[in-house]
Amino acid sequence: MKLESLKTLFNPKSVAVVGATENQKKMGCHAIISVMESFKGKIYPVNPSRDEVFGLRAYPDPESIPEPPDLAILAIPRDHIYGMVKKFIERGTRAFVIITAGFREAEISDGEVMHERLRNLVESAGAVVIGPNTFGMTDLKSGINASFTPALYKVKKGDIALVSQSGGICHLLVPYAMRYGIGFSKIVGLGNRLNVDFPEMLEYLAEDENTKSIALYIEGIENPKRMLEKIREVSRKKPVVAMKAGRFEKANKASKSHTGSMAGDYKVYTSALKQYGAVIAETLEELVSYAKALSMQKPLYGDNIAVISLVAGLGMVASDTCELIGLKVAEFSEKTREKLYEILPPYTIRDNPVDLGFVANDPELCGKAIETVADDRMVDGIVVNYIYSWSGDFLEVPVRHIIAAGKKKPMTACINYPPGVWDDVKEKLESSSVPVYPTPEIAVKGLKALRDYGRILMRG
Amino acid sequence: MKLESLKTLFNPKSVAVVGATENQKKMGCHAIISVMESFKGKIYPVNPSRDEVFGLRAYPDPESIPEPPDLAILAIPRDHIYGMVKKFIERGTRAFVIITAGFREAEISDGEVMHERLRNLVESAGAVVIGPNTFGMTDLKSGINASFTPALYKVKKGDIALVSQSGGICHLLVPYAMRYGIGFSKIVGLGNRLNVDFPEMLEYLAEDENTKSIALYIEGIENPKRMLEKIREVSRKKPVVAMKAGRFEKANKASKSHTGSMAGDYKVYTSALKQYGAVIAETLEELVSYAKALSMQKPLYGDNIAVISLVAGLGMVASDTCELIGLKVAEFSEKTREKLYEILPPYTIRDNPVDLGFVANDPELCGKAIETVADDRMVDGIVVNYIYSWSGDFLEVPVRHIIAAGKKKPMTACINYPPGVWDDVKEKLESSSVPVYPTPEIAVKGLKALRDYGRILMRG
Repeated sequence: MKLESLKTLFNPKSVAVVGATENQKKMGCHAIISVMESFKGKIYPVNPSRDEVFGLRAYPDPESIPEPPDLAILAIPRDHIYGMVKKFIERGTRAFVIITAGFREAEISDGEVMHERLRNLVESAGAVVIGPNTFGMTDLKSGINASFTPALYKVKKGDIALVSQSGGICHLLVPYAMRYGIGFSKIVGLGNRLNVDFPEMLEYLAEDENTKSIALYIEGIENPKRMLEKIREVSRKKPVVAMKAGRFEKANKASKSHTGSMAGDYKVYTSALKQYGAVIAETLEELVSYAKALSMQKPLYGDNIAVISLVAGLGMVASDTCELIGLKVAEFSEKTREKLYEILPPYTIRDNPVDLGFVANDPELCGKAIETVADDRMVDGIVVNYIYSWSGDFLEVPVRHIIAAGKKKPMTACINYPPGVWDDVKEKLESSSVPVYPTPEIAVKGLKALRDYGRILMRG
Repeated sequence: MKLESLKTLFNPKSVAVVGATENQKKMGCHAIISVMESFKGKIYPVNPSRDEVFGLRAYPDPESIPEPPDLAILAIPRDHIYGMVKKFIERGTRAFVIITAGFREAEISDGEVMHERLRNLVESAGAVVIGPNTFGMTDLKSGINASFTPALYKVKKGDIALVSQSGGICHLLVPYAMRYGIGFSKIVGLGNRLNVDFPEMLEYLAEDENTKSIALYIEGIENPKRMLEKIREVSRKKPVVAMKAGRFEKANKASKSHTGSMAGDYKVYTSALKQYGAVIAETLEELVSYAKALSMQKPLYGDNIAVISLVAGLGMVASDTCELIGLKVAEFSEKTREKLYEILPPYTIRDNPVDLGFVANDPELCGKAIETVADDRMVDGIVVNYIYSWSGDFLEVPVRHIIAAGKKKPMTACINYPPGVWDDVKEKLESSSVPVYPTPEIAVKGLKALRDYGRILMRG
């Protein structure tokens, strides 16, 4: 029943925004803008002191809305939340986003009590709540931004579902993702997790056809056993990447005040998460970068990596990173070595790591070398490192060959370029499942995520 | 004498470009464009088969140029290099950038011989050569781009000198830096280091008033003793950050083919570099990020960090990172705690890590909290984490207060925002010496670089 309500939450046909206003100092203003800019269905602003909000007819209360809205977004003072949710439930609404803060997360004695009371109400109706104390959520594929951040909907559409216990982290990751063109299916701020927590989201996302990988930013875990069982179940179907904050005591203490749960012992939790099937990320950059690789590429079932670079320096850094994080720079087969000696001239490096610098302006030849390496049965995965030429058409990325090689073996690419200029190259590669990263280190780490997931799947 | 020649190299009054052409397939085309787009002095294209190049009068040979040019950039076939350099030296030129490859780096038996012969010629004249086998160099402050990459001159002016043994690494770091607005004074590709190697560059940069920190990307070291002594000397005056590639054998092998030197044992070299006064970077991101912190901020002489964040999640991640890399989340003094309880309401976190979320829309109050923390004598350094508001003026960064706090204690900031929107905030902070980073992890690592340098200075 909760699963059904979650389905409605992410695919509503009508949405009420309670606290909708044109006063920019209020969350309700940004929430209604978010909905208006994203949502094609019926929108019902609820505000007893206004007839209209941004040209939409406003309603004084849930009872006066012509139909029970599928989703209600609440941005009103804490003390009015319970009564309002009750009225919506009575009308038949089963999905809520509660932005309002001040429940069990803060230094207020009655917060916990109010939290519990609200939960009982919601649970008994089979309804679901994202929040309270959240920015909300956005579903970029179904087309609803139920958050106080209109710009969330300007993020690129993609196949990663980001589920975060911290809204701030989402708001940091989103511009990071925008700079590097990382796409999302959904971005969800769990907030205080009244009755939608990681396990519910995992269960829902496992079946969500818009989502290919799941990224979790975790602070505290209420019910570790349930969470771990769900990760075990879901990770067989879809890769789950988890970053666990609260590694040390100081951060842990902050977690309690923040979303009302202790972060728990970092090592115990990450070992458990890993054992149950999560790919572990240690930084925010890793979290989205891993999720990106896993949303695009096949799992990697071996350690032997071919490193192919347009410039030797990148090849060195990529090779170092491979060895440092537990992958190997592959030994090419005799056949591959012979073929590379045949097709590539001196001044290039015709062994792993391959350096194509001297033939950089011959994309056909570079592409042929990349495909040759991809055919080597001693190679399990590939990282390709390219630089931007800066000089007109002097240098061209052999997109077609890279894509072909990426179909043969799990592959990531490092290509960094001045903002704007090679977005089409990146777009072509990524739409054919080759994830592009800004540095060789993070490109190799992308392969490591594929390897970790390969290990998880092999374990069964 | 070499130092004098280096001074001329980076501050030429006249420049010859040998091999200048309008044929976009040739390096000489991009080199002449680079010079024309950057350089205000006299430019002399040298090309026996053309009367003009891009509207500039071309000369058939060095002898016919009206004056001995201060700097000659050579982009002609390898076999003509020696004779050409000789002619320029006879005319009085003492500074060269040799782009041409094919000396001791490649699989060619006579490369080493040609390298030595050229070096003898150059050395005996007291001249200096950047290269061969390099993209060249650019000096953003004096105004000369002597490279085959015109766009290098579009990088932001700043106080970091980047000296790299790999041109590819520079060409990757430059767009990375452009994305995050990191500025450089000089970018130098050493290539095969005919007679300008890291020690010469260090000696020159120590006295260069345009440079506040020095970033080195190192593959092999020819003469470790000389290099280390120079680092010891220079690091007393200016921070030196070093990244050493060739950590593992495979990368090491590539280095030999790449710039003609073995990378050597990674651990031995990095321990030695550290001991002699370099701040060690382990990734390319760290290399530029550390150099940025060190070019703007004071050294840090203690481990106790105050973490102040607009959102608790960022504070948790920053706190975790502190502890993980050897810094401490400071214990605030009683006085500071009392003051924070006095000025901040509940719903905020009024201890370290400080969470200002609930008063986010009150920049004055946020600023006051930041300054309060900066006054605590138990606090050695500060990291401030902000997110972009996304919703008009809902949220404002207390720039003035952050700058004031940054004058009291070494400080870095994490602010990530959609490309373009908060560049003015970043600019204001950075022009007042507060370096801004895209993630809390890398902002804290910036503090670590300041701490490492503090330790180096205290060691004397």
